[in-house]
Amino acid sequence: MASKNLFLLAGDGIGPEAMAEVKKLIAAMNEKLGSGFATDEGLVGGCAYDAHGAAISDADMEKAMAADAVLFGAVGGPKWDKVPYEVRPEAGLLRLRKDMELFANLRPAICYPALAASSSLKQEVVEGLDILIVRELTGGVYFGEPKQIIDLGNGQKRGIDTQVYDTFEIERISGVAFELARTRKNHVTSMEKRNVMKSGVLWNEVVTQTHKAKYSDVKLDHMLADAGGMQLVRWPKQFDVIVTDNLFGDMLSDIAAMLTGSIGMLPSASLGAPDAKTKKRKALYEPVHGSAPDIAGKGIANPIAMIASFAMCLRYSFGMVAEADKLEAAIAAVLDDGLRTKDIMSEGMTEVGTVAMGDAIIAKF
Amino acid sequence: MASKNLFLLAGDGIGPEAMAEVKKLIAAMNEKLGSGFATDEGLVGGCAYDAHGAAISDADMEKAMAADAVLFGAVGGPKWDKVPYEVRPEAGLLRLRKDMELFANLRPAICYPALAASSSLKQEVVEGLDILIVRELTGGVYFGEPKQIIDLGNGQKRGIDTQVYDTFEIERISGVAFELARTRKNHVTSMEKRNVMKSGVLWNEVVTQTHKAKYSDVKLDHMLADAGGMQLVRWPKQFDVIVTDNLFGDMLSDIAAMLTGSIGMLPSASLGAPDAKTKKRKALYEPVHGSAPDIAGKGIANPIAMIASFAMCLRYSFGMVAEADKLEAAIAAVLDDGLRTKDIMSEGMTEVGTVAMGDAIIAKF
Ligand SMILES: CC(C)[C@H](C(=O)O)[C@@H](O)C(=O)O
Ligand SMILES: CC(C)[C@H](C(=O)O)[C@@H](O)C(=O)O
Repeated sequence: MASKNLFLLAGDGIGPEAMAEVKKLIAAMNEKLGSGFATDEGLVGGCAYDAHGAAISDADMEKAMAADAVLFGAVGGPKWDKVPYEVRPEAGLLRLRKDMELFANLRPAICYPALAASSSLKQEVVEGLDILIVRELTGGVYFGEPKQIIDLGNGQKRGIDTQVYDTFEIERISGVAFELARTRKNHVTSMEKRNVMKSGVLWNEVVTQTHKAKYSDVKLDHMLADAGGMQLVRWPKQFDVIVTDNLFGDMLSDIAAMLTGSIGMLPSASLGAPDAKTKKRKALYEPVHGSAPDIAGKGIANPIAMIASFAMCLRYSFGMVAEADKLEAAIAAVLDDGLRTKDIMSEGMTEVGTVAMGDAIIAKF
Repeated sequence: MASKNLFLLAGDGIGPEAMAEVKKLIAAMNEKLGSGFATDEGLVGGCAYDAHGAAISDADMEKAMAADAVLFGAVGGPKWDKVPYEVRPEAGLLRLRKDMELFANLRPAICYPALAASSSLKQEVVEGLDILIVRELTGGVYFGEPKQIIDLGNGQKRGIDTQVYDTFEIERISGVAFELARTRKNHVTSMEKRNVMKSGVLWNEVVTQTHKAKYSDVKLDHMLADAGGMQLVRWPKQFDVIVTDNLFGDMLSDIAAMLTGSIGMLPSASLGAPDAKTKKRKALYEPVHGSAPDIAGKGIANPIAMIASFAMCLRYSFGMVAEADKLEAAIAAVLDDGLRTKDIMSEGMTEVGTVAMGDAIIAKF
């Protein structure tokens, strides 16, 4: 039997509370279904800094590299706002992405029917929304060099970041987008700023070539990223798969997530290239929401995004499609039953805490 | 009497149609109020490329530099999609911004009461919305060097753009934001990605220092740009003035504009530093909407954003505050009367074309 080693990095803030619900779920799957998951745990973010003086230790990085999949909670909080840039909580996440070469970040923005009314957008604009943002995750301005602050003297400093994309990076991320589009509505929209950025010109060119060479059966559109942001707000249902770079993807996926009114519900998967021999991809699964330090430790955090991230893990890392479907259905069923954590509470529903929400989903599973 | 030289660059697409309405308005002001505007006209964008092979000619650049204010329509269209990068339509606009040193881009996002229902957001989320985005316009990734595509051989290319900000650039744009906040709700939110970008670290540092040194009476918040985008969609009324860099400003101001449901209505002003002697700022006024080639020449474009841009021109370049107020009131009155161009048409209203809309506003003025 293939190994199923999970490395859990719960992180800071509400990360540990949300992860606890996934741990219960894993235990239940092992016990009742004999799923055979083995788990190990490490530290990332502020808690890793407190323990080791680094946002992730080398030992934990090694475990992440060796695992079949990493489950990641959230990092950061006001406690670490003043720590040096190199060891700030986010550095742990960025190192995981870079060292594991997780170039493909999949961010579904789905509007759960039970929550359509809680969006700030009109119900008809978001009801039934199902888009997938495919964000490049190991390139662009996040990692390009030079990246530095130079002291120019005279009280002047200069901050520099560099946006860099190579052909192969654009090729492989657009390949992922086209492949995924084929399993959905077969429509990809590529977003960049080719009218201002040379990396955008190259992005547009390579996506177009990749499409022509291998995926001409998929419908491809190009949109400027600023116009794309507007269109997301105006009529998001025009999109199926959106492929874009690291920084635009950061902005656009957060906006798409917010449209759904379900930011506490949305999962993400970050995938590497398939290994030449084993065909396995390195992978990290992470809720879209952050560490929410203001509500941490109160037992009121919404564990659904973390649980849905585990569903993505079942689907993409272990090919457990039936189980993934079942888990997603369990989430929808619990919402249909009217259970709500505080962040998604509305009139007439039943407010529950983190643990009760986790229990309810496990019971339906 | 101070000179009032306006240089009109109508550009492409619906630019000329929208500008025609402002020309009528200027003529009316000269005739009835003796406003004494002198106008000259030039070419920018695709039409300039067709005429001169450049997105703006040196002669027109000189006129723009010499004018008291430039009124700009819109540039671009499918006809010029394949022209070389250096002479693409947008290059004309970017050269104007850079050579005139228009570092401060003011983009109000106002929800006209008459249009609150036509937003894709819930009416209560946007009704009464009035935010001002102050976008840095001559720095960042738009102009930093290197900006190039390198051929690496083996079919690989590398696209590079450079995000650069110096202390003085951040200081002066945040100064503009704080000053404007004092005339409004006295609240500035600065947005960057300091968790990923060194320019963001510097941005945050300099805004904080500028605030402490000179504007501590203004309320200042910092927000990560991705979170800021989400908050704009979730509850935009939490903001008063948002100050951000060139690229984030591009994205965030378009999203803010779309929230209002009034993208065809929104003006912008791009201002330089006050001249040491004359105290006058170089200035360019421009609607937020683009050239909309699909509806160009049909007489259905909404001229309001262009007219509202002229209102900003009256206010900021000529200190004609009463006239600016009156013009803005005329726009609101015409909307209250139920007149709508096609882009903002809704049931029970009266659909009119570009010219009729222009006439109606001039009649109320
Ligand atoms: C935490 C931060 C570094 C990260 C990013 O900017 O990528 C986050 O915003 C995300 O989108 O995963
Ligand atoms: C036309 C384009 C170069 C421009 C920009 O990116 O700044 C436009 O989107 C804007 O916001 O004024």
